Amino acid sequence: MLSEFDLIKRYFKRERPGRPDVGLGIGDDCALLSPAPGRQIAISSDMLVEDRHFFAGADPFMLGHKALAVNLSDLAAMGARPIAFTLALALPRADEAWLDGFSRGLFALADEHGCELIGGDTTKGPLNICITVFGELSPGHALRRAAAKPGDDIWISGTLGDARLALAGCWKEVELTPEAQAQAAPRLHMPTPRVALGLALAAVPIAHAALDISDGLVGDLGHILAASSVGATLDVDALPGGPALARQDLALRRRFTAAGGDDYELCFTAPMSQRAAVLEAAAQASTPVTRVGTIDAVPGLRLVNAHGERLDLSLAGWDHFVAG
Amino acid sequence: MLSEFDLIKRYFKRERPGRPDVGLGIGDDCALLSPAPGRQIAISSDMLVEDRHFFAGADPFMLGHKALAVNLSDLAAMGARPIAFTLALALPRADEAWLDGFSRGLFALADEHGCELIGGDTTKGPLNICITVFGELSPGHALRRAAAKPGDDIWISGTLGDARLALAGCWKEVELTPEAQAQAAPRLHMPTPRVALGLALAAVPIAHAALDISDGLVGDLGHILAASSVGATLDVDALPGGPALARQDLALRRRFTAAGGDDYELCFTAPMSQRAAVLEAAAQASTPVTRVGTIDAVPGLRLVNAHGERLDLSLAGWDHFVAG
Repeated sequence: MLSEFDLIKRYFKRERPGRPDVGLGIGDDCALLSPAPGRQIAISSDMLVEDRHFFAGADPFMLGHKALAVNLSDLAAMGARPIAFTLALALPRADEAWLDGFSRGLFALADEHGCELIGGDTTKGPLNICITVFGELSPGHALRRAAAKPGDDIWISGTLGDARLALAGCWKEVELTPEAQAQAAPRLHMPTPRVALGLALAAVPIAHAALDISDGLVGDLGHILAASSVGATLDVDALPGGPALARQDLALRRRFTAAGGDDYELCFTAPMSQRAAVLEAAAQASTPVTRVGTIDAVPGLRLVNAHGERLDLSLAGWDHFVAG
Repeated sequence: MLSEFDLIKRYFKRERPGRPDVGLGIGDDCALLSPAPGRQIAISSDMLVEDRHFFAGADPFMLGHKALAVNLSDLAAMGARPIAFTLALALPRADEAWLDGFSRGLFALADEHGCELIGGDTTKGPLNICITVFGELSPGHALRRAAAKPGDDIWISGTLGDARLALAGCWKEVELTPEAQAQAAPRLHMPTPRVALGLALAAVPIAHAALDISDGLVGDLGHILAASSVGATLDVDALPGGPALARQDLALRRRFTAAGGDDYELCFTAPMSQRAAVLEAAAQASTPVTRVGTIDAVPGLRLVNAHGERLDLSLAGWDHFVAG
């Protein structure tokens, strides 16, 4: 049987030149980072549990991708540049085919972002993947949830709702054609962290507040409103739905774009005076963005349709503790 | 039912002035650290799983202590000063009595070391505790496993074997009196990370190589030997056994001190010329140390008794993946 030591050596330790700001990687009591002088380190940690964040029997390559992607998405939402990550992994058994797929999916995305695996832990136990990711940014440039200001535009990257539609297809909540399921599924299983966009928005900085949409836009935008002590009006019909969702009826489109979950797009606010700069940053990051509402001083979130009429949608955010 | 948000607010978010080098704590997409100029950040991550690293029904206060202690022990072994940590927690249910005990045990130890909880994750799932800890040190001062040199003394902090004895008592592997069990149990459930000693040894630096003994001395010392391409002679009868173990027979004392596990003492090497400095560092850290062997150039680990005669002990280290 594969020992813990062999498992790490075979699947997770790579013999190649590391980043200059990684002083020491896998194999000692600690890893060592040497941050560039004057930079801040952004840190985020996400734990993925079988049957809660992914299905039992999920494809290991896609799971390796997703486990890192949701963490990189947090760095993106802060405007931080990825440096490195740790991986703690509980596995019911040392399944080599699983480890091979998982590590390939993980490293494919890590390499895309120059993000180095520097340490972690492996143990036997119910499948659990805990990644802690490290990024860097300049002090004062972090895109904070508490930074939205009345008059700011609200922007969304990419499209919303296809991840939730894929889940609805799996659950048979919605009848999907095989083509629609195939189109929506990658958004659920292999989300794209919007790292380049986050960096471009934080560089000047252009944006005020930002977060990544993981539990549904309405709930997540609520965190920005609460932290910033502001309110907002959101044009639900302006929300950019995914291509698979576009073929569904209006009620479902509204529900899944506004409160789907697992989107891993950025929601950010920026002053009206920065509209051109936002569009330029989006072009530079090759990431489409859509303006979907306005921050104002009146507490609460008002949902409106394309004609500016109030919508009374019953939308609940996803709570990883209560739900499911 | 307690939501994820309420749970974090009630048990883990504290309203008090944070450390000046923590730019941002719990509540945004990322936490932010602002390391002092020129310092390195030491990072370690440990995952604790029920029935593997602790018993089902383990006292939550002690579990909170231990989950952080094993991580602080890694910082100690590197000679790093604790700054902060993240906590990712999967819980089968939001049990408030459990959360109250766990968070109190966690923060009691964290406060002792000025180590701030800056973020993490909570989710429903089989009980799993994943902590990632951050410390700081001066470049070139880290106590690396690869730094042992022929001629170095081998030192051990504190005492060994009582944690393993407590486990043997629980398993009925050894018949223990209630007094012996009560004396040994804290070493298993509430280990003391040797942070002050690690800092003192790294300050000059006095020590060459170091690690913390988590899987049994013989196995862990083997990591230093392999990383440093050296060998060693270890005087098994010089190993400082714990007070509960002292009343057991010689064979058990040898086995549990040399290859017990869960000791969380430091094993370090230092040149003979530094003996007085090691003892002074130990006194300064109020941590006893014992000299137990010598590093040499001959590959392999030779176990000897008090008379220098070779012992042929069959000792296996603990592998968190294969064992159990």
